[in-house]
Amino acid sequence: MTTTTPTSATPSPRLRVALNGFGNQNKEMAKMLVERNDVEIVAVISNKSNVGKDFGEIIGFDTPYGVLVTGGSEASEVLKKTRPQVAMLSTLSTVGDIESQLRVCAENQVNVVTIAEELLFSWTSAPEKTQEMHDLFEKNNVSLIGSGFIDGACCDMTRTMAAMMHRIEKLEGGLQYNVDQYGKVLAIAHGVGLTEEEFYAPETGPGLTSPTSYPKSYVYNSNEWFAAALGLTVAKTEEVKSPTKASVELYSEAIDRTIPIGQCTGMTVTATTTTKEGVTIIGKQVGKCYEKDDEDWCAWNLEGNPGGVGFTMKAPPTPAMTNTAAISRMFQAVEAPAGYITTDKLPTMAGYVHKCLTERGSVE
Amino acid sequence: MTTTTPTSATPSPRLRVALNGFGNQNKEMAKMLVERNDVEIVAVISNKSNVGKDFGEIIGFDTPYGVLVTGGSEASEVLKKTRPQVAMLSTLSTVGDIESQLRVCAENQVNVVTIAEELLFSWTSAPEKTQEMHDLFEKNNVSLIGSGFIDGACCDMTRTMAAMMHRIEKLEGGLQYNVDQYGKVLAIAHGVGLTEEEFYAPETGPGLTSPTSYPKSYVYNSNEWFAAALGLTVAKTEEVKSPTKASVELYSEAIDRTIPIGQCTGMTVTATTTTKEGVTIIGKQVGKCYEKDDEDWCAWNLEGNPGGVGFTMKAPPTPAMTNTAAISRMFQAVEAPAGYITTDKLPTMAGYVHKCLTERGSVE
Repeated sequence: MTTTTPTSATPSPRLRVALNGFGNQNKEMAKMLVERNDVEIVAVISNKSNVGKDFGEIIGFDTPYGVLVTGGSEASEVLKKTRPQVAMLSTLSTVGDIESQLRVCAENQVNVVTIAEELLFSWTSAPEKTQEMHDLFEKNNVSLIGSGFIDGACCDMTRTMAAMMHRIEKLEGGLQYNVDQYGKVLAIAHGVGLTEEEFYAPETGPGLTSPTSYPKSYVYNSNEWFAAALGLTVAKTEEVKSPTKASVELYSEAIDRTIPIGQCTGMTVTATTTTKEGVTIIGKQVGKCYEKDDEDWCAWNLEGNPGGVGFTMKAPPTPAMTNTAAISRMFQAVEAPAGYITTDKLPTMAGYVHKCLTERGSVE
Repeated sequence: MTTTTPTSATPSPRLRVALNGFGNQNKEMAKMLVERNDVEIVAVISNKSNVGKDFGEIIGFDTPYGVLVTGGSEASEVLKKTRPQVAMLSTLSTVGDIESQLRVCAENQVNVVTIAEELLFSWTSAPEKTQEMHDLFEKNNVSLIGSGFIDGACCDMTRTMAAMMHRIEKLEGGLQYNVDQYGKVLAIAHGVGLTEEEFYAPETGPGLTSPTSYPKSYVYNSNEWFAAALGLTVAKTEEVKSPTKASVELYSEAIDRTIPIGQCTGMTVTATTTTKEGVTIIGKQVGKCYEKDDEDWCAWNLEGNPGGVGFTMKAPPTPAMTNTAAISRMFQAVEAPAGYITTDKLPTMAGYVHKCLTERGSVE
């Protein structure tokens, strides 16, 4: 949370942004951010590659942007020097996975928006680590916000729709996405390339669920988000996982090998939340390597009064909307209360305003 | 706009609501409002019938609610006596149609939420009358807000979705509704029961469009809303109307007669807005008497970066959502700035909160 308030007498300075992680997502994020009048990328941090190169050249600019990619070990130093107001953290999926990156940001008083899926609502899936991060960010007077496709296309859209309900009895919906678009770590977590036996193997099987199994699914987190947003008290959230299986031999880019017929291409998870108020929330995610004709979808329906309220997104551009949702939250992050702030506590995403774009053409 | 601020030490008092008009829409609205802990209906005003009867008995309660329906001529008197904070005005469609009802509310310092379709954004369709009403409400320190299905399901949902766009080039969408659900005045305005010749007849034909023809379509108003919400400058909005025709002989409840094959069952309107920024907005409304298999729909798509962002509502409960959207705005009305405030200037609809409902069962 910044302490300076821009006055109406002077134009708002551009938002100073760091990209923490420079893989598929943040490279696409960078292309969007450089087309905005209201944003300046001041730091790009990567653990993996391209360290020392100009980030503009990496994403295809003709001329350098003037910001070199910094290695992760120098993150603290570069944040101190460049003083970004917000870091877009796009690396791994859970609060534990990104803890060290979060610490560096918090300690340098940089607000964070992350697409780490668990951070949509990690209060119940990882309560201790979440409390620790909340305290750390609060102490440093900056905010930590989890966003992405589910925040925008599932949660925020459904919250807007839910505002047109008189009485909700049940919320049911979900999404499907192509795990091949999100890299190896996520594919392995989805059981891609396993046999059914391996999928359910004791100790190691990603298909096992129990009250204590961890990490939880994305829809576990979004169910808990919905309960908080609708003012409900969760009695229990349970999830069931089952493998999706190859009906044809299928090459997976994420694990870089061919999956034989019958082996796992990913998983379906159904998370069911019951509440003290009697409202049921059912979230379903299907994450798998796509066969011909598979495409992303997102659909949510509300039962109650009135009946028949729901919406469907057919073939939404899920990876791109992960970035655009996070960008919408980026502007809220600098105004949000300090600490870990779930987006059910924030206003709906900041609206699109055409005049924020530069006249410059797209880099794509 | 109220000037009192509830303190956290005392529970908020219930919102004092008047129903202005007691036809189909406000009767259903009443059923919902009496199930809320946070609302009290203090006045019901009707020009038509049921004057002197308890409104609870009219909507099917076993016991009287204790509020009698008041005739329109006594509206000012009853508002003075009961001091509602907001009136839900559900009578006719244009700012001119409801002017006298608006005056009575404003002069008694009652905020108004109306489902009169033009009021979604009447600044450009009826600029003089709108300015007059704006000044009147502002002077009396109360707000006037237009809401309904289009506000919620089209505008607010699409605004939430638009927040996930990086660059918008085109917004295209629309809705279909059954004119038989909204009474005779609306059906006649849609050309129900006319021949094609009558539909386009000079002077009187509802299908005629010109830069000065009035009233404009609902999508004319929603296009202008979108332009305002997205920070665009309208160059021009044009609309084209064409009749829908009976493919089978069809009884229309609204005009209480049978429409022969080939005659008009309603109309399709396409409104196209061009903007100085180069963004195009195309809204399409189909309002007609339904034949077998016809059903309501609402769908909006955005073109630009990313591509493929859109949503569809299949068979939404349009009349009920007209009420629930207006109820969501009702709470914003008492906090809104004084004057005529279009909802593009307001936050997204207030969220559903289960605890606002009473334990009492539904009256349906």
